[in-house]
Amino acid sequence: MKTIKGIIPPMITPLKGDDQIDREGTVRLTEHILAGGVHALFLLGTTGEAQSLSYKCRYDFVELVCRQVAGRVPVLVGVTDTSLDESVKLAAHAAKCGAVAVVAAAPYYFAPSQQELIEYYTALADALPLPLFLYNMPSHVKVFLEPATVKTLADHPNIVGLKDSSANMTYFQTLLYHLGGREDFALYVGPEELTGESVVMGADGGVNGGANIFPELYVQMYYAACNHDVNTMHALQRKIMQISTSLYTVGKYGSSYLKGVKCALSLLGICDDYMSYPYRKFRTEERARIRKALEALGAECGE
Amino acid sequence: MKTIKGIIPPMITPLKGDDQIDREGTVRLTEHILAGGVHALFLLGTTGEAQSLSYKCRYDFVELVCRQVAGRVPVLVGVTDTSLDESVKLAAHAAKCGAVAVVAAAPYYFAPSQQELIEYYTALADALPLPLFLYNMPSHVKVFLEPATVKTLADHPNIVGLKDSSANMTYFQTLLYHLGGREDFALYVGPEELTGESVVMGADGGVNGGANIFPELYVQMYYAACNHDVNTMHALQRKIMQISTSLYTVGKYGSSYLKGVKCALSLLGICDDYMSYPYRKFRTEERARIRKALEALGAECGE
Amino acid sequence: MKTIKGIIPPMITPLKGDDQIDREGTVRLTEHILAGGVHALFLLGTTGEAQSLSYKCRYDFVELVCRQVAGRVPVLVGVTDTSLDESVKLAAHAAKCGAVAVVAAAPYYFAPSQQELIEYYTALADALPLPLFLYNMPSHVKVFLEPATVKTLADHPNIVGLKDSSANMTYFQTLLYHLGGREDFALYVGPEELTGESVVMGADGGVNGGANIFPELYVQMYYAACNHDVNTMHALQRKIMQISTSLYTVGKYGSSYLKGVKCALSLLGICDDYMSYPYRKFRTEERARIRKALEALGAECGE
Amino acid sequence: MKTIKGIIPPMITPLKGDDQIDREGTVRLTEHILAGGVHALFLLGTTGEAQSLSYKCRYDFVELVCRQVAGRVPVLVGVTDTSLDESVKLAAHAAKCGAVAVVAAAPYYFAPSQQELIEYYTALADALPLPLFLYNMPSHVKVFLEPATVKTLADHPNIVGLKDSSANMTYFQTLLYHLGGREDFALYVGPEELTGESVVMGADGGVNGGANIFPELYVQMYYAACNHDVNTMHALQRKIMQISTSLYTVGKYGSSYLKGVKCALSLLGICDDYMSYPYRKFRTEERARIRKALEALGAECGE
Repeated sequence: MKTIKGIIPPMITPLKGDDQIDREGTVRLTEHILAGGVHALFLLGTTGEAQSLSYKCRYDFVELVCRQVAGRVPVLVGVTDTSLDESVKLAAHAAKCGAVAVVAAAPYYFAPSQQELIEYYTALADALPLPLFLYNMPSHVKVFLEPATVKTLADHPNIVGLKDSSANMTYFQTLLYHLGGREDFALYVGPEELTGESVVMGADGGVNGGANIFPELYVQMYYAACNHDVNTMHALQRKIMQISTSLYTVGKYGSSYLKGVKCALSLLGICDDYMSYPYRKFRTEERARIRKALEALGAECGE
Repeated sequence: MKTIKGIIPPMITPLKGDDQIDREGTVRLTEHILAGGVHALFLLGTTGEAQSLSYKCRYDFVELVCRQVAGRVPVLVGVTDTSLDESVKLAAHAAKCGAVAVVAAAPYYFAPSQQELIEYYTALADALPLPLFLYNMPSHVKVFLEPATVKTLADHPNIVGLKDSSANMTYFQTLLYHLGGREDFALYVGPEELTGESVVMGADGGVNGGANIFPELYVQMYYAACNHDVNTMHALQRKIMQISTSLYTVGKYGSSYLKGVKCALSLLGICDDYMSYPYRKFRTEERARIRKALEALGAECGE
Repeated sequence: MKTIKGIIPPMITPLKGDDQIDREGTVRLTEHILAGGVHALFLLGTTGEAQSLSYKCRYDFVELVCRQVAGRVPVLVGVTDTSLDESVKLAAHAAKCGAVAVVAAAPYYFAPSQQELIEYYTALADALPLPLFLYNMPSHVKVFLEPATVKTLADHPNIVGLKDSSANMTYFQTLLYHLGGREDFALYVGPEELTGESVVMGADGGVNGGANIFPELYVQMYYAACNHDVNTMHALQRKIMQISTSLYTVGKYGSSYLKGVKCALSLLGICDDYMSYPYRKFRTEERARIRKALEALGAECGE
Repeated sequence: MKTIKGIIPPMITPLKGDDQIDREGTVRLTEHILAGGVHALFLLGTTGEAQSLSYKCRYDFVELVCRQVAGRVPVLVGVTDTSLDESVKLAAHAAKCGAVAVVAAAPYYFAPSQQELIEYYTALADALPLPLFLYNMPSHVKVFLEPATVKTLADHPNIVGLKDSSANMTYFQTLLYHLGGREDFALYVGPEELTGESVVMGADGGVNGGANIFPELYVQMYYAACNHDVNTMHALQRKIMQISTSLYTVGKYGSSYLKGVKCALSLLGICDDYMSYPYRKFRTEERARIRKALEALGAECGE
């Protein structure tokens, strides 16, 4: 697999009820994102509410999006699970649907040690039918994939990169130092607030949730950073931070970001904003705040 | 459902390979535990490695144990999941197999707020075909079920109790104060080191992992505490602490307890000690330490 | 030093302004506590806001209380500090004033390793003019004094006991198992909700903040537990939990407990409730809730 | 006070015994750092082991360094304390010695709420004789200075900036977005691994521990970032990361960084590497590893 460079939006999963995919919304959202010039698509990540969906629903969604994308960009599928066997099964389905790689955070119930993580990821990569991206997500899985662990795993022929959602840039710089020069291992940053500085320092791209709404903005940031065009980066960063501090901070939820993204897409007429348990979508008052934030960003709300 | 009082062992899941149940071992272990006079059995909890098993394997295990128990004691089944739908499906299967209740910790990927927990557990209890026990497990799921949350949920007609594995006794005493007198809501303590003091202060029983190995010891502690026989409690507590400080502390793993229980059962000839990923069973040196600890406890190793 | 057994109230520090001791209030509070039959007094602990006071203020307070107590009960003084030298100086002052022992939590800025804790406490105990009690307070100092560390330190001739404020009873039971039988090492529990069950299981007493307000209640619990009188324990525990759940839970502060204790003492006419930075005392509305809680407990508010 | 821009090394405190300053080493270290072209000097921070030193020792050190610097660069003094009164006293001393500003992290024993932090810092800034820099250090003080808190405090006329040592760049970008354009409020980053990307994105400078050893390296990075010279930044970043991953990672201590810096300065013949409790300096084997790392960096060890 050729290394993917650029913006890889972690797609939300449009729902219209418990475990009911909003199929028309999914098609519209896919086209909306692809029209922004993104370089790949990542399904069933944290932003995709993967863990909250039944397996049937996850399988259906992968199939639907892969069919819609139809090879225009590479599709990555999240197979993060606590059961290795379920990860492998979902990966086999993803391969059949045309996905090019899978992504897995650490098993997230019982917190494993670093040695156990090495054994787990090795067994997983051995069993998978597709290349594997590691996914560092300590706030959700309770453990870091420490740099020494990542260095060991990066030598596995079927492990091809890492997405870091820790926001800890000392950690990410350490990975860049050890692995940044390798053609066969890609490093992506999760938080969209950090795509500019990460790419300018050598990262391969960003897996940025805001690209569900404004895909071209993050693509522009990616190119500005690749071109070392710092003045353009400053201007784009202000817009990215306006999104981050207005759309993602309504309410005092750990999930305010996710609720904001879904609500915004609904206001823009792209897809439904139903959320799976334990989350509930924004109601009237919060929705009004998201609408106001979108308008301040120059977006036209369809409703 | 009549309230269950006493010792409810959280059964380990005997395995002989990835997602392969050790069926003969399961039968032997079931009989071993029941022979100790326990008051119920809890399958697919943390000790049962539930999250690491495929769904197929979980379903098989519930069926196998329910058939073997054949109504001699009530069977509870863990349905902890990040997907509400998968919890409900597993509960339906458990009901069909003859289980009397299910147990669920909070969804454990994205950490929910207390309000989200109330909505989640209400929706779950509404949908379940069996009564529900709450399960407080903050070290694994990252959130406490706060006392005010538990008080609200305790009024749901289908929520019948709580198991607390936090080891935080100020928390547990707060639950006892608010809910300890209710006939329709049971309070159990997870850590076996605390069963004596919890029951003597008013708890309904213990969900103690050591009861896989030495079921009668925890049953004796339960009765001594019910009888306010403090001198006997002191003697039993020394034995319980000897187990805790020798069998559960080999290696520096978060999972040392679980590895120790499985290894001990293997040394006693009861069942295989294969562990599902991300865990690996103890090897030669650690196994020798478990053997020595068992011998110091007067247990006869069959190997 | 003969082991102290029983209730050792962690005295609040009555203030009437920044670093200004309420001297009359201190005298009244000392007499109020001693009248309850407590077995010792502990100054400058967490409840005493020690870290928030200037050294001058700490020195004055030790002198004032020691003079007032005049040997009627042993006085212990908190010397918890990040600078070993300042701890030793304060201990020398405490010895001169007549204190019989000092108490020290781990240095609380940079989190030390267990090996560093052993070296630190050894150096401290070597340098101190008085016997030392260890103080396990992980929520404030970020590290546990692990059982193996405590076992090592318990062999130092000048280290004579430990107070545990973790509320983690598995931890405390482990200490009781390893050190509970020793005449030269005492084990106290901090949270007053746990004094009954801890003493009945073998602890030497409780360092309970509520004993500032209702000293005789905790003394009664201590004796009931010593006598294995479980029925009396149950009755006392209900009162203790009523205090805990009404006086200590006003507002959503980490310091609600401390604010509640000071406010209650002010309402009872015992001492001023000024608090040192970063805390501020309760204002009108919160004060009314504390008054109501006190009245429900049968206490007469003087104001 | 004019805003300070550039590299502000957090100076270590050279010691030759408990609370004994290595005065000759301090003079040599001061000259070594100033020779590197740094823009200011910060005494008694985390890297300065301030909390471990007696007050007498802290006062002496401030006096000694201020006299040596003699106005060549501005001197900032850490007054982080749990007692507001002690902070103010130390600040008065610093002002008398010629320091231009002070720096304070949150009080670090009892964790305050954000509202309590606002009241605390307001009272502190009101009482201080010098301008105040906030210091965000969540790993040590347990709380973040949240963006809304910082925004409120930034309006206080005596609060002039913030140093962030969280390594959380989403947090830092949020501060840059809200406060980055203000002439009267400076934003510095603590971790030296992040100085390049922070300054290129708009930060005012770095408070970088490695500048004790290699001051000119961080000064070069500062200028390269100011000039948007990304290629030079890449080359300097490799050197900075080599330092970070070789000098700061010997042993498995939370304090490996600090031990590494002191040991390196001792090997370079600049000052003694005694450490105050609870830390101990590196011994033979670890020292050999630091020597090797220094040699790989092209530094000449004098010993």
